[in-house]
Formats: sequence, C-alpha cells, structure tokens
Amino acid sequence: MYRIDCLQFANWSESIFREMNDGGVHAVHVTIVYHETFRETVAEMSKWNRWFQAHGDLIIHGKTAADVDRAKESGRTAIFFGFQNPSPIEADIDLVEILHALGARFMQLSYNNQSLLATGCYEDDDPGITRMGKEVIKEMNRVGLVIDMSHSADRSTIEAAELSERPITITHANPHAWHPALRNKRHEVIKAVTDNGGMMGFSLYPHHLADKTDCTLESFCHMAFDAAETYGVEHFGIGSDLCQDQPDSIVEYMRVGRWTKGIDYGEGSAAAPGFPPQPDWFGSNLDFGNIEAGLKAVGFDDAGVAAVMGDNWYRFFAENFGRQESA
Amino acid sequence: MYRIDCLQFANWSESIFREMNDGGVHAVHVTIVYHETFRETVAEMSKWNRWFQAHGDLIIHGKTAADVDRAKESGRTAIFFGFQNPSPIEADIDLVEILHALGARFMQLSYNNQSLLATGCYEDDDPGITRMGKEVIKEMNRVGLVIDMSHSADRSTIEAAELSERPITITHANPHAWHPALRNKRHEVIKAVTDNGGMMGFSLYPHHLADKTDCTLESFCHMAFDAAETYGVEHFGIGSDLCQDQPDSIVEYMRVGRWTKGIDYGEGSAAAPGFPPQPDWFGSNLDFGNIEAGLKAVGFDDAGVAAVMGDNWYRFFAENFGRQESA
Repeated sequence: MYRIDCLQFANWSESIFREMNDGGVHAVHVTIVYHETFRETVAEMSKWNRWFQAHGDLIIHGKTAADVDRAKESGRTAIFFGFQNPSPIEADIDLVEILHALGARFMQLSYNNQSLLATGCYEDDDPGITRMGKEVIKEMNRVGLVIDMSHSADRSTIEAAELSERPITITHANPHAWHPALRNKRHEVIKAVTDNGGMMGFSLYPHHLADKTDCTLESFCHMAFDAAETYGVEHFGIGSDLCQDQPDSIVEYMRVGRWTKGIDYGEGSAAAPGFPPQPDWFGSNLDFGNIEAGLKAVGFDDAGVAAVMGDNWYRFFAENFGRQESA
Repeated sequence: MYRIDCLQFANWSESIFREMNDGGVHAVHVTIVYHETFRETVAEMSKWNRWFQAHGDLIIHGKTAADVDRAKESGRTAIFFGFQNPSPIEADIDLVEILHALGARFMQLSYNNQSLLATGCYEDDDPGITRMGKEVIKEMNRVGLVIDMSHSADRSTIEAAELSERPITITHANPHAWHPALRNKRHEVIKAVTDNGGMMGFSLYPHHLADKTDCTLESFCHMAFDAAETYGVEHFGIGSDLCQDQPDSIVEYMRVGRWTKGIDYGEGSAAAPGFPPQPDWFGSNLDFGNIEAGLKAVGFDDAGVAAVMGDNWYRFFAENFGRQESA
C-alpha cells in the first residue's frame, strides 16, 4: 500500500522532509512554479537539486513509479515536479520535451486566468482549448507530461479531457456539489475527466472544504466515499494542497503573480487575505493516518482505502510518465 | 506634410534605409518581434541600436513626434519600435513600462492566436479581453504604449477600443467589405476603433488587397476614399505591411512561431506558402508617391492626401506616445 500526496507547496525545509518520512509518505507531487518563466523554472529545479544533494537521506527526485518504490524501500520520499501554470513553456512548444527531460511530470494548462493554452476558472468567459493548447496537449501526451486542470475553467477542462489521448488530472480539488467553491469541480467536469480514465486528488485546502477550517474529518471522508461511489474509486487520490510554513505574502503571489498591479483576493477576501488555518486533523505530513482511519470509518474497504491513499496515484504514475507508445 | 508608414517588417539593410530616405519617408513603425520573449526583444533592440550607430546618416530612433520632425529636417527617417504580439511582456505587467522606456511604442494584444491578453483572429471563439488584458490596457494607457489590434479577433478588438481610455489602432489592415480576408476588419470593428478616436493604417500586403497582387492602385485608393467618407478621414493612414527582401522562411515563422510542431499557412496555402508578390505600383519605400498621386486622382483634396499619407499618424504619435496626464 502506497501513501502519495499529489499536491503540496510548502516552504520546504529539512523539517518538512523529515515529516514526510515520519508520516510514511512515499511520494509527493510538489509545485515548483506558479507564474515563472522557463529560466526561472530551471532555477527552481536547481534549488531542488541542491536539496536532493543535501538531504539524500530523506528525499529523492522522482521521475517514474519505480522511484516511488525505491523511496518506499529505503524509507524516503520521492519528489515529483509540477507547474501550476504553463508559463515555463513560454510560447515555445519545444520546451515541453525539454522540461520533461528535466523531471517535470505535471503541468496545469491554466491557473485562474487565461493562458496561451486554456482558460482559468476566474475568467468571465471560457472559449475552450486554444489553437496552441491543442498542439501542446498532443506534445504533452507524446512525452509523458501529465495535464492538470485544477485551476482551469469548466469548458476548457472538458475539452482537454476529450482532446487528450491520455488520461488527465485534477490534482487538487473537491466536488462542487459538496462545497460550491469556484475552484471545486462540477459533475460534468469530474465525469469528463474520470470517463477519460483520469484522476482527481481530494484537496485539504480549507477554501475547498465544506465549513472550511471547521470541516470535520467525517464530512471530508463522506464526500470522498460519495465521489468514489459516483465515479469509481479507481479515479481518486489525495492532492492535499498543503502549503505548510508559508507566509501570507506567498498566497498573494499565487493569486496576483505579475499580471496586475492591483490586488486580487482569489478564494480569500479583503478581510481574510491570507492562508486559512488548516483543520485540526490535517496540518502536516504526519496526519495522513487520520485520513486513512477516517476513510475506513465511513465505509471504504481495505482495498478502497489503499486505492485512495496512494495506490491509484502509483498506478497513474506508472502509466503516464513515460513516452506514448506510438511516439 | 508628413510621409509616415505605420508598419513595415523588412529584411533591414543599408539599401532599404537609403530607399526610405530617397522615398521621402519621415517615419516608419517597424515590427521588431513577432513571438519573442523579453530577453530576445532586448536583443532585437540592440540590433537596432547598432544600425542607428552605423547608419546615423539615414535613420534615427524615434520615440516622440518631435523625432519625426528632427528626421524630416535632416533628411532622415525616424524608426519607431513595435511588437506584433505581447510576448515581450511575458506574464509580467511591469515589463510594459520597461519596454516603453526602451522605445517600444506599439504592441498588438494578440497575433492570430489567443494570448494572455486577447484573442487572435484565427481562433474559433473569442471571449474578449482577459483579466490580465484589462490590467495591461490600463498600464499601456498610463505609460504611452499604443494598443494595436491588427491581428486580433473582432470581440477582443471592440472591447479593447471600449476599455482603453486612449485611442487604439489597427496599424495594418483594410475594410472587410472591400476584400473579405480574415485579417481585414468588419464595419463594427472599424467603427469601434474610430469612434474611440483611433487610427487604422491601410495595408498594401497582397492578401489584404482585392485581387491580391493584381489589385489596381485605383481600387486601393477608392477603398481608402470610401473608408474616409464612412468613418472620417482623420482616422486613416498607411500601414503598408511591407516585408521587403524577406525569404519565405520568415512568413512561415510569423505564422508558426513556436506554438506548433506542425505547419500553419495563415493567409497563404499549401500551394502558395510564401510571401505573395507585391502589386507593381507598390514594392518599396520609393513608391509612396504612387499612392499620393492615386489618392488625389480618386478625389481626396490636398489636406486629405496629406492626412492619409502621414499627417494623421504624426498627430496620433504626438498625442499618444507620452505618459497619460493623470499618471
């Protein structure tokens, strides 16, 4: 049984890497950039290379599912790189293959706003996947860079699921029916992604939770149970969106990037612009046991618990990080 | 009376600069990038700095309308920088002010495809100006970087005209009613731009001309006369889109950039992928006299000829390249 978290963006430190190990987390998909250029993305990769060198007893650079096994067997955590925005490829489709070679495994086609490829969930209107987006989807399919639509708008997400020859993901979000946040996903969207063989990671970010910080473990696990019943348990995992030890300036940067000289509160508000406090049952990599117990308590069988806690993401990694067979 | 061409993209050389002088052209808006990044744009500016140094007897770097006068008085040509795509600002609104400081005076909000700011004329669907686009329009207004919508889609262009507090431009295109090319502009679009005080430059690029290469000077000048009658002569100038001495590989790069690994023929076709031949009455900077004579022949009075040949662009430059009064 694997324990995999398919989205974190912490203020990384030895202490967090140690918590990953102590919490029995075999793999984490980490966001390495939100709005950065190609060159800035390479600089973030270089930071990670230094951490892999300095903390080789705790973390390894994950590129394949086999790296998850290697991490698990040696009591370490495999770190997989992802981008929340396609800004690292700039306007250059050839950078898809270059960034995959450097270890990138997930890329969101848009982050809140319109990108060159797709529309973000905060735009008023969503024309779907762009001309460049259609080309980049083919290239991501070919080299094994996974499409993530967590912050994309509905039509773009459904079109991406349909256009992509390989399964796509929503690495971190919850069903809109459970908690009607703008970032949570409507039925048609989850259906399009899962019908295509795709995966969704349940988010523990308070803005995505019913009752936010006060969300109970039971409510969260019931939501997961209902989703598994509706769409099939094989399509779900965890994508906690844990942003541990980050100052509030970081959530401002996530929302505002460099696209406005004003301010944008995203899921927050002028009265509460910062990171919301985590629910008391999930605050760090040490708390995955709570979720595991919670899933069991609401009726998941052992295989179902294992599937959601990591086995599904493991299978997905094994099938989707390599080159497309015909390519 | 001024003679100004508000769009050229030649394979620049001393011989072309000399033709500008010999043709009595006081100012040219030159495209310095189509799809380039910020850093690549700076490199193109550096190339121009070297040309200004080497050919200071022929060309000067134009930043204000006063530079057009300086060029005219000394028998030289003022070169104004523009971008056909907002790629030079990448995803960073602060680069608007930086690029203006370096001499940029025109920026298209999109080029054929969807950009971060607006939709291009080759996309299937046009959701209008994006969230970032609205912010960038304000910033371009503030610093005096002129909005150009030549390659943008209709709704985006109309919204840009409405959102912008300063006049916008279509530097190079013709009315769709005269020649229904995808790149030519429909009535509602020209109306929105001119109602806002904006300018349109008549294009001499064969794909924008009725009968293309075989277009007659008379037909072109009648089109100009009708446009001046319909929207007001003060809103028109020349934006020839002259691409002198360019190899066909360049038109392929314009169309394909780095957004696809395939091929896109744009206004051309598989059978005719290259630059189309120019009409015999307009092939270089030596030929503006033909247009001047042609405009007179179809009924423009002297003031009207002067307005279209350059006086309108001169006035527009004088009013729109500086900082917004309140800013």
